[in-house]
Amino acid sequence: MASARPSGEETLIARYFKPLATEPGAFNLLDDAAILNGAGEDVVVTADAIVEGVHFLPHDPPDTVARKALRVNLSDLAAKGAVPAGFVLTLALRSADEAWLEPFARALGEDAKRFGCPLLGGDTVSTPGPLMIAITAFGRVPVGSMVRRSGAKVGDRVVVTGTIGDAALGLDILNGGPIAKALADDLGSKEMLIARYRIPQPRNALAGVMRDHASAAMDVSDGLAGDLAKLCAASAVSAAIDVSSVPLSATGRKLLAGGAVGIEAIVSGGDDYEILCAISEHCYESFAQQANQVGIAVTTIGTVIAGTANPRFLDAQGAELTLRRHSYSHF
Amino acid sequence: MASARPSGEETLIARYFKPLATEPGAFNLLDDAAILNGAGEDVVVTADAIVEGVHFLPHDPPDTVARKALRVNLSDLAAKGAVPAGFVLTLALRSADEAWLEPFARALGEDAKRFGCPLLGGDTVSTPGPLMIAITAFGRVPVGSMVRRSGAKVGDRVVVTGTIGDAALGLDILNGGPIAKALADDLGSKEMLIARYRIPQPRNALAGVMRDHASAAMDVSDGLAGDLAKLCAASAVSAAIDVSSVPLSATGRKLLAGGAVGIEAIVSGGDDYEILCAISEHCYESFAQQANQVGIAVTTIGTVIAGTANPRFLDAQGAELTLRRHSYSHF
Repeated sequence: MASARPSGEETLIARYFKPLATEPGAFNLLDDAAILNGAGEDVVVTADAIVEGVHFLPHDPPDTVARKALRVNLSDLAAKGAVPAGFVLTLALRSADEAWLEPFARALGEDAKRFGCPLLGGDTVSTPGPLMIAITAFGRVPVGSMVRRSGAKVGDRVVVTGTIGDAALGLDILNGGPIAKALADDLGSKEMLIARYRIPQPRNALAGVMRDHASAAMDVSDGLAGDLAKLCAASAVSAAIDVSSVPLSATGRKLLAGGAVGIEAIVSGGDDYEILCAISEHCYESFAQQANQVGIAVTTIGTVIAGTANPRFLDAQGAELTLRRHSYSHF
Repeated sequence: MASARPSGEETLIARYFKPLATEPGAFNLLDDAAILNGAGEDVVVTADAIVEGVHFLPHDPPDTVARKALRVNLSDLAAKGAVPAGFVLTLALRSADEAWLEPFARALGEDAKRFGCPLLGGDTVSTPGPLMIAITAFGRVPVGSMVRRSGAKVGDRVVVTGTIGDAALGLDILNGGPIAKALADDLGSKEMLIARYRIPQPRNALAGVMRDHASAAMDVSDGLAGDLAKLCAASAVSAAIDVSSVPLSATGRKLLAGGAVGIEAIVSGGDDYEILCAISEHCYESFAQQANQVGIAVTTIGTVIAGTANPRFLDAQGAELTLRRHSYSHF
C-alpha cells in the first residue's frame, strides 16, 4: 500500500498547535485525550466561545482573535481566583487558510505562555459558516476556595477593576458608529478603544488577591449593569451604584462629557473583561493595597444592599438611571 | 428602575440545561465556572465538536443530535479507560428555537444520566451559521492509568468492538446514495444503519477492562484504516489486518456480498465510534472474557507488526487492498 500522507487536519495540528502543547499531559496532541492532574486542588472549569460576526468582526486580525478567544476564558479564571492550568481548543474553520492560521496560532501560543495556560488538546472541524473558537479553560484553586458569584453580603463594597465601557466604544468605532466621528482625528484614542475591544486584559495577576478577599466575583463580559444583576441575584442581594464612581478612561470621560455617548451605553456595553466583585469593608484596605502591588486599579462603585430588586444606578444628584438594556443577550 | 426580566439566554439555560447540572460542582449553572475535584485521580479531558452539515444532517432529529454530540466524547473516554465525570457544553445556535431545544436538552439529559456524565457548565452563543455543539468531557482514571494511543507492541492483537461500517452505510442512505436502492424495501435494515450514523453506541462499559488489558487504544471515528494508521504511528509500529475478519453487521455483510459497497468504503468510512485497541496475546483471553461479561463483542482483526509503514489490509487471498482514502479529514 502506498504510504498515506498525513491529512490536512493532522498537518495543521502538528504545524500550528503542537508547539503550544507544552504540558506532559497534552501528549504532544498525539492522543485522543489529555490528562489534568488535580494535585490535591480543585480544578476550576470554564467555557467561553467566540463567533465571527458576533464576538469578533470578520476583519479583525487573526492574532487579536486568538488573544480574545483565550483571554475571555482567562478572565473567568481570574475572577474565580484560579491560577490557569491549561485549555482545550475547538476550532471551526471554513478552510485551512495558513495565512490566517499562522498568526492565530503564534499569538495563541504567546498568550498561553504569558498566562501560564498551555494547550492540552482539542478538536479542529470544518464549517460552512462563520469561524468559531470555543475554549474550555482550567484553573486550580485550593480545595473549596473558588470565589463564587453567590457570596456577596449586605454592606460589602461593589468594586470593579480597570475602566468600564472602552470596549463597547471601540466596537462602535469598528462598526462606523458615532464615536468614530466624535473622535475625528484623535487616532491614538481610537486605537486604544479598538484595542480594548479586540484584546481583553484579563486580571489574572489579581487571582490570589481575589481568593483572599472577595465575598463574590465574576468577570464583566456582557455589560456591567447586567452582570451586576446576575451577581446580586446569585447572592440574593441588591446593590446601589454611584454612577459617577464608575471608572472611565480619559477618552471615555471626554466622550461622555461631550455627549457622544451616554452613561447607559457605558454601563450596559459588553466586552469589558474586568472583574466585578464584592469586598467586605474590613477586607477592603488589604484588598486595595494588594491590588496596587500587582498593578491593577480597583474602584469602589457602590454598596451591596438588602433586597431582591435589580441594582440601582444613581447619578450625582441621586436620581436613578433607567436602563433600557442591561447587557448583551444572545437571544 | 423597572425590574429587568431574565434575558432569553438565561431563560433557556435555566429551562433546558439547569436540570442536567446535577453535580454540586456545577453550582446549578449559576456561576461562571464549575469545580472538578480530582479526588486523587487523573482527570482525562477530551473535546469533540459536531457541526450541522458536517457531522450531522440539517434534518436529523434534535434528540439524536444531542446524543451524538455527547456520545462521540463518551466514546473517547471509553477508549481511554476513563469513567465519565461530567462535561461542559458550548452550543452555537441561530435562534432559541424551543421546538428544537426541548427535545435536544431532554435527550442530552437522558444520556448524561445513563452514562453518569452530568453537565458542569458551558456557553450558549448565537451564530448566523450552522448549528454547532462543542463538548469538552471529563473522565477519571487512577493516576497514570489512562490507556494511550502509543503503547501498541509488536505481536499484540489488533481488536475492535462491535461492527464496522454501518454508520457510513447509514449516512449514504440519508444522502440518497446507492445503499438506499440496494436495500429497497428492507426498512428495518435501513433504519438500523441510519440509527448507527445518528446515535453512536459508546463502549463505556468496557472502560475498566480497557485499563486492565489494553496496550493502546483509541475510538474509531474517522474510519478504521486511518485511525489504525494514527494508533500505529503513535506507537511506532505497523499492523497487518485480515480484512475478512473485520466484523460486519448482517446487513453490512449482505451489502458487501451483493457488491452494493466495497470493503474499502467500509474500512475507511467514519462515525463507527467503536474501540480500536492493541491487546497482548497473554492478556487476550481475560480481555475477551471480561468484554463478554459486560456484553460487548470484541473481534481480533490482525496483528501489530514491526515497521513504520502504514497498516496493511490483506484480503482472504493475501492480496493487499489499495485504499485511496484512509479516513475522513476536515481539510
